[in-house]
Amino acid sequence: MIEDKTPQKTSIAQLGEFGLIDYLTQHFEISNESTVKGIGDDAAVLDFGNKKVVVSTDLLIEGVHFDLAYMPLKHLGYKAISVNVSDIYAMNAKATQVTVSIAVSNRFPLEALEELYAGITLASKQFGVDVIGGDTTSSQKGLIISVTALGEAEENTVVYRNGANENDLLVVSGDLGAAYMGLQVLEREKQVFMVNPNNQPDLDEYTYLIERQLKPEARKDVPEILKALEIVPTAMIDISDGLSSEILHLSKQSNVGCNLFEDKLPLDPQFINVCEEFNIDSTTIALNGGEDYELLFTIKMDDYDKLKGNPHFTVIGHMTAASEGCHLVTRANTKIELKARGWNALTEE
Amino acid sequence: MIEDKTPQKTSIAQLGEFGLIDYLTQHFEISNESTVKGIGDDAAVLDFGNKKVVVSTDLLIEGVHFDLAYMPLKHLGYKAISVNVSDIYAMNAKATQVTVSIAVSNRFPLEALEELYAGITLASKQFGVDVIGGDTTSSQKGLIISVTALGEAEENTVVYRNGANENDLLVVSGDLGAAYMGLQVLEREKQVFMVNPNNQPDLDEYTYLIERQLKPEARKDVPEILKALEIVPTAMIDISDGLSSEILHLSKQSNVGCNLFEDKLPLDPQFINVCEEFNIDSTTIALNGGEDYELLFTIKMDDYDKLKGNPHFTVIGHMTAASEGCHLVTRANTKIELKARGWNALTEE
Repeated sequence: MIEDKTPQKTSIAQLGEFGLIDYLTQHFEISNESTVKGIGDDAAVLDFGNKKVVVSTDLLIEGVHFDLAYMPLKHLGYKAISVNVSDIYAMNAKATQVTVSIAVSNRFPLEALEELYAGITLASKQFGVDVIGGDTTSSQKGLIISVTALGEAEENTVVYRNGANENDLLVVSGDLGAAYMGLQVLEREKQVFMVNPNNQPDLDEYTYLIERQLKPEARKDVPEILKALEIVPTAMIDISDGLSSEILHLSKQSNVGCNLFEDKLPLDPQFINVCEEFNIDSTTIALNGGEDYELLFTIKMDDYDKLKGNPHFTVIGHMTAASEGCHLVTRANTKIELKARGWNALTEE
Repeated sequence: MIEDKTPQKTSIAQLGEFGLIDYLTQHFEISNESTVKGIGDDAAVLDFGNKKVVVSTDLLIEGVHFDLAYMPLKHLGYKAISVNVSDIYAMNAKATQVTVSIAVSNRFPLEALEELYAGITLASKQFGVDVIGGDTTSSQKGLIISVTALGEAEENTVVYRNGANENDLLVVSGDLGAAYMGLQVLEREKQVFMVNPNNQPDLDEYTYLIERQLKPEARKDVPEILKALEIVPTAMIDISDGLSSEILHLSKQSNVGCNLFEDKLPLDPQFINVCEEFNIDSTTIALNGGEDYELLFTIKMDDYDKLKGNPHFTVIGHMTAASEGCHLVTRANTKIELKARGWNALTEE
């Protein structure tokens, strides 16, 4: 019935996920004084008194965001919380509460849901958040998880995406690309398993990569470390869709350009080995892999000394004038324009 | 793979929705000072300073909660917001923000989503809430909507489900059962349409009922009126699952019993007519219909004079000792035990 309404239709895939969000949300107006920040950042920011309240939400769909063939339900529950609180940390805030709604088809026995909730409980302890509500219902197909995370922030240390300035340094926590290669390993093992179900995979040499994919750890520690170092980033974002994509978001919203240096990209040795094994260019994966849930932020040049040598952080570039655009400076010292090739749920089907 | 894990399985349907929520959430602990109220009420309550923050969340699944054959997308968007802010009003609070996440299969053209968002926008204006975020992704099947609503409340006027006392009066806003009968009318028209698609239904005499089903209006005005009347209810809940079911929730959590009077149930004349037309007992529907999104609350006997004669409210019973149980006192003055026969998403499949 719906499809017949007008003869000319726009495909959702044409717009892409971000285009779709921008398009659909352009008419929303803010009318409450307590709304400091609505759509357009990792999380919304509210002000109900002494503290800012930070809110973020995500929807995870079986067959789109996860495959239960190799994602154990306990890990899935853990990941659902982790990816949400990551958005709170990306505001330089402390995650405090989550709501968790699930829809399941009747094929799921209770024991499966217990596994899922065991992961949710573990993550809520790990990240120090209270599960304060949710909805549970049936689905027509598969498992659907919706999580909303809330956090609190101080007015003078909450960090948005749009505050980066020319000459600021670009910093990333942890290392890049491992979650994506973990997924490649798991996909390969799934194929092997389908051919020979008795084959027990030896995944020892891929432990770190698989853990990065199945049990991503949101960087709760980063806002804490930054506070201890007395650094307030000028802009911050989490890396869920890949480094390139997130750098472009941050640069666009801050109206600056960026030079990113290939030789500075922090890569784990296991990641480099597996890229060679799969014959894949490690830089391409580090730039576009996604799902690392590390934090990307910019700091004033003056803050460099405070952060220098800190094992959690790597300076990977600097911001430029918007007119210069965003580029990767390769090891061969050539400049390549950065493009977003991040994972896009709406075109993957 | 999941189904093989243990030989003995518990079916989700056996537990029912509320049993499942209780079961799955029993291990969650509260660790943050700012969490005043977690799971167990219409919404969670947080304290970030001067005001309480109230949070509620719902998941709506195509084929489970709505049927696009007779639910226009604009109405669906409106309803998704309305049912969520209703939970905020049920805390005697003011709704202030919502996050809206949607998952859609590629069969939805952009124009359909625009309709959906037009309804969301209309509702956000109607209820005075800011849409502050959300997630948009693809689904494997159908449309999924997840809404989280936030609101603010004063510490001394926030109302929980568990505060009712013996001798308190039981009050309901608006009228009962109309949304359910609206659904019956729409279901009948759908059957007629399937037999003869050229038949244009004449729905004039069902307008009120259909509107109650398709475009439920959460009672934003009730907390405002109560404030003006200087009444703070002792307990409050919204009627989404049917009057009986909600009375039992409120009584159980308050540890009281209840006498509900059949002759006091507020019924719209159109509702009574259609019940006769369908040959359905109107009391049964008023008790169990669900989706009315009116507010049910208890007040101290001393507050009766303030509320007497107010066209928005009807006193329908009073609370008793828990040992007396919950009963309907019929027109024939016999007592029938109240049972929850509300709509249950997990057993309906």
